[in-house]
Amino acid sequence: MTSIENLQQQIKILEQQLAEATLNNVGVPVREKIKQMSSEVVGTNPYSRLLALQRMGIVKNYQNIQSMTVAVVGVGGVGSVTAEMLTRCGIGKLVLFDYDKVELANMNRLFFQPHQVGQSKVEAAAKTLRFINPDVEIEIYNYNITTVDHFDEFINTIKTSSINKGPVDLLLSCVDNFEARMAINTACNELNQIWFESGVSENAISGHIQFIIPGVTACFACAPPLVVASNIDEKTLKRDGVCAASLPTTMGIVAGFLVQNTLKYLLEFGTVSHYLGYNAMQDFFPTMNLKPNTNCNDRFCRKRQEEFASKPKLEYCEECIEEKPLHEDNEWGICLIDESVPEDTNTKKYVAEGLVQAYDLPNKNIDFESHAIDTCDQSLEELMSKMKSL
Amino acid sequence: MTSIENLQQQIKILEQQLAEATLNNVGVPVREKIKQMSSEVVGTNPYSRLLALQRMGIVKNYQNIQSMTVAVVGVGGVGSVTAEMLTRCGIGKLVLFDYDKVELANMNRLFFQPHQVGQSKVEAAAKTLRFINPDVEIEIYNYNITTVDHFDEFINTIKTSSINKGPVDLLLSCVDNFEARMAINTACNELNQIWFESGVSENAISGHIQFIIPGVTACFACAPPLVVASNIDEKTLKRDGVCAASLPTTMGIVAGFLVQNTLKYLLEFGTVSHYLGYNAMQDFFPTMNLKPNTNCNDRFCRKRQEEFASKPKLEYCEECIEEKPLHEDNEWGICLIDESVPEDTNTKKYVAEGLVQAYDLPNKNIDFESHAIDTCDQSLEELMSKMKSL
Repeated sequence: MTSIENLQQQIKILEQQLAEATLNNVGVPVREKIKQMSSEVVGTNPYSRLLALQRMGIVKNYQNIQSMTVAVVGVGGVGSVTAEMLTRCGIGKLVLFDYDKVELANMNRLFFQPHQVGQSKVEAAAKTLRFINPDVEIEIYNYNITTVDHFDEFINTIKTSSINKGPVDLLLSCVDNFEARMAINTACNELNQIWFESGVSENAISGHIQFIIPGVTACFACAPPLVVASNIDEKTLKRDGVCAASLPTTMGIVAGFLVQNTLKYLLEFGTVSHYLGYNAMQDFFPTMNLKPNTNCNDRFCRKRQEEFASKPKLEYCEECIEEKPLHEDNEWGICLIDESVPEDTNTKKYVAEGLVQAYDLPNKNIDFESHAIDTCDQSLEELMSKMKSL
Repeated sequence: MTSIENLQQQIKILEQQLAEATLNNVGVPVREKIKQMSSEVVGTNPYSRLLALQRMGIVKNYQNIQSMTVAVVGVGGVGSVTAEMLTRCGIGKLVLFDYDKVELANMNRLFFQPHQVGQSKVEAAAKTLRFINPDVEIEIYNYNITTVDHFDEFINTIKTSSINKGPVDLLLSCVDNFEARMAINTACNELNQIWFESGVSENAISGHIQFIIPGVTACFACAPPLVVASNIDEKTLKRDGVCAASLPTTMGIVAGFLVQNTLKYLLEFGTVSHYLGYNAMQDFFPTMNLKPNTNCNDRFCRKRQEEFASKPKLEYCEECIEEKPLHEDNEWGICLIDESVPEDTNTKKYVAEGLVQAYDLPNKNIDFESHAIDTCDQSLEELMSKMKSL
C-alpha cells in the first residue's frame, strides 16, 4: 500500500537530489547564444579576454574565428583538450571523429570525467563542449576512419563540413596509431587539405606537432616523426597486459602547441611552426622544416608537389637558402629528429631508449638528397597568405 | 486535492529529471577511493597509464606521489589547470588559495564551466577535483594572502599542511599580480620553502615558470621575470574598461610546464628547469639559470644564501663553470631574458613591445657582477637529491 505521506516523502527526497545534481551541472547551456563577439570589459562577457588580443595588436580580426571550421580526428588525451581549447576560443564549428568509449583508465588525462565512463567519446565531448560554449557548432562522427566504408565517408565529410558547406579550414590529427595517421595523410593529400599531425610517445615524455601543406611541406608518408613509437595503438597494447604510459601534462602541452599554431594559422599572426617537438626530460623543443620527398609513396603527395612546382615562382623564393641535410653522413641523408636526446648526435642511433621507429624507411634507393631542410621560415608564411589570396 | 496518481506522476517526472541531471554530472564520486595504486592494465583502473611510467623506466616509484602535498596559490587560468593535472596524476593532497569568484569572462580558459559562475574559485575547483579523483585530499582557503592577517595564516598553513602536518612538499605560484608574487616570495624565503613561480604576459602570447630554492637560485626579489608585465592585476585593469588578454593555449602550456617540472622534482626524474620561458609567436623557449643576488632586498633570501654558502662544498661544485653575465655590456650586468624577441639582442631594449618591466631595479649601485649565470644544470639536480638525503 502506498500512502500519500509516503509518496510526498519520496517527492521531497527526489526534489532534494535533483537540486543537488542540478547545482553541479545543469546540463543545459547557462547563457544564450552570442551572435557578435563583443570586446566589452564586463565579467559576463565570455569573449572579453580574447577580443583584448585585437586591442593589444596581436590579432587583426579575432571575430574571423567564428566563420572557421576545424576537424579534430581522435578525441583522446590530445584531441579532447584540443577541442575544448578551440571551443573556449569561440571557433565557428568543430567536426569530431572517434569510435572509442570513455573509460576510467582515461582519467589520468584532462577533459573526460568519471560520470562519462561508458559513453562514446564524441558524444560525451559534444555534450561538455556545447555546455561550455553554446556558440560553437559541434558535429560528431562515431566511427573508425580506417575501414573502407568509413574512409570514403570521412573524405566526403572533410570536404563538405565547413560552415558554408565547403572543405574544413584545418584538420587536426590527434590519433594514437599509425594506421589512422596514414588514413588521414592519404585523405589530406587527395583533398589538398592543410592539416596538423600530432603525437605523444608511448613513454609519455615526448611529443610533437607537424604542419602539413600537401605538396609544399613533407607529408606523413614522406617522413613520419619518430614519436609515433610503435605501430600499435593503445588497444592492441592492452591485450598483452601492457599499456602505453600517458600524462595530462605532456598531452595538455601538445594540445596547447597544436591549438596555438592553429590560431596563428587561422587568424594570421606569429609564425606557424612546421615541426615542433617537446622532450619533457630536458625541456627541449626541437624544430625543423621538412620539404616533401619527391619519391614519396603517396601518389597524391607527388601530384601536389608537381602542382606546387608548376606554380609561378614568387619573390619569397629568392630569399630561400637551400641547406644540406642535417645528417648527411647517415645512410639515407634524411634528418630524423631524436626528441629524447638533444645533445648526443650519434647518427647510428636515431631512436631514444624505449622507443622504436614508427616504420621502416620504405625504399633505401630513394634519392633522399633532394629531401633537404628548408630553413626559410618566413617564406612559407608569406606563401600561405599569398596562396590564400589567389 | 492530491490524488495518488497525481503524486505518482510527479515522482515519475522527478525521477526522469534526476536521471537526466545525473547523466551529466552526478556530483558525487563515481568510484570508491583507491588506497594502493595498481598497475593492472584494465579499463577500470584510473592509474594504469601512470604506473606504466615505472614499467617504462621513466619513474622509479610512482606511488610516492600519494604521500606528497602541493600548495597552489591562485586558481585562475594557470592554477586551475595545474590543480586538475595534479589531481589526475593522483597527488596525495592539494592546498588551494584564491579569493576570487568564477565569472563568464573566465570561460576562455580551461577548467571552470558556466554553471559555476558566481561560486568562489576554490570551492568550485574543489568540487570538480574531488569528483574527478576522490583519492586526492583537497583543502581550500578563500582569502587574499596579501593582507596582513591572512599573510600570517598563509605562512602557518604552508608550514603545517602536508599529509603528515609538516610543510608542503612544493608551492606553486599561479597568481596574476606582482603583490601576491612578492607575498609568496617573502613567505617562501622565511620558511625556506622550495617553490615555482609562473606567469603569463598581459598580451597572452608568452609565459614562463621559474624554480626557486631559497638561497640557492635567484628568488623573485633577486630578479623578477619580465613577463609579470605591469604591476596591476586583472581587476585593476578592468576598472578602466581595459582587460588583459588571455588564451586557453598559453595558460594550458604554462600549467603543463609547471606540473611536468613538479612531477620531475617530486618523483626525481629528468632535469628540473630553473627557468623556462615560452613565446607563442615564434615557438621559442628561453631557458636559464639564475644565481641569487647577494644584495637581494629580502633579508631571508640573504640569510638562506649565507646558510647555503656555509654548507660543506660538494664535489659537484668542481664541475661548475662560472660564466660572465650574458649582457655584460648593459648598465647593470644583469641578464634579463626578453621572451618576445629571440634574435634581436638590443641591450638597450630589454622589454618587448606591449610589455613593461615588472618593477624598477631596486638599486643601481648594487654589485650585479656577482649575479652571474650558473651554467651547471646537472649540479643543482644532484645537489637537491643530496640536500634531501641530508
